[in-house]
Amino acid sequence: MSTARARSLTHEDPAGVDLQTALEALADPVRRMILQDLAAHDDWTRACGTFDLPVTKATRSHHFAVLRAAGLIEQRDDGPRRLNRIRRPEFDQAFPGLLAAVLDVSGR
Amino acid sequence: MSTARARSLTHEDPAGVDLQTALEALADPVRRMILQDLAAHDDWTRACGTFDLPVTKATRSHHFAVLRAAGLIEQRDDGPRRLNRIRRPEFDQAFPGLLAAVLDVSGR
Repeated sequence: MSTARARSLTHEDPAGVDLQTALEALADPVRRMILQDLAAHDDWTRACGTFDLPVTKATRSHHFAVLRAAGLIEQRDDGPRRLNRIRRPEFDQAFPGLLAAVLDVSGR
Repeated sequence: MSTARARSLTHEDPAGVDLQTALEALADPVRRMILQDLAAHDDWTRACGTFDLPVTKATRSHHFAVLRAAGLIEQRDDGPRRLNRIRRPEFDQAFPGLLAAVLDVSGR
């Protein structure tokens, strides 16, 4: 694992995120696609490069960073792969019902 | 009632609103203040001019228009006053749990 790479992975605990930041993170269709995908898979089984997203690599990185900053996902490097999990229990504690409401409608 | 004024009151039914539009409408602190206020009062008892909001009159009108377009509020003119209601039952049917999740956290 590259130290420089790992250092770039700043996370925010959902308990320290305000509602405005959370709603802005959720108010993007590509970010909701990422969250839907993660919600449908076990933790740490989805690598960043494997998501089927209609955006460039740079834009993809931006979306993952916004989701980290809103306390919605956690990432860790595993060799060349960057693995993900949705922080569902922690986020649900900070914003009860919000993620369920958004994912239920997104998934229809 | 002025016809021109009434004509400017276009509403959107929540059933025809997409999730992106709903989330963008909710992702603003002033609009959440308006919704909190309406949720705490009976329908049609709050006039636009009586909300205590930290914005200009033009900005205030913009926020009410965004809330109408997202199916979150309904307005009607009553003489010189423009009265409001939050469209809670209809919005809840279109986006189950979303408004409750946002208002619960906003109100903390």
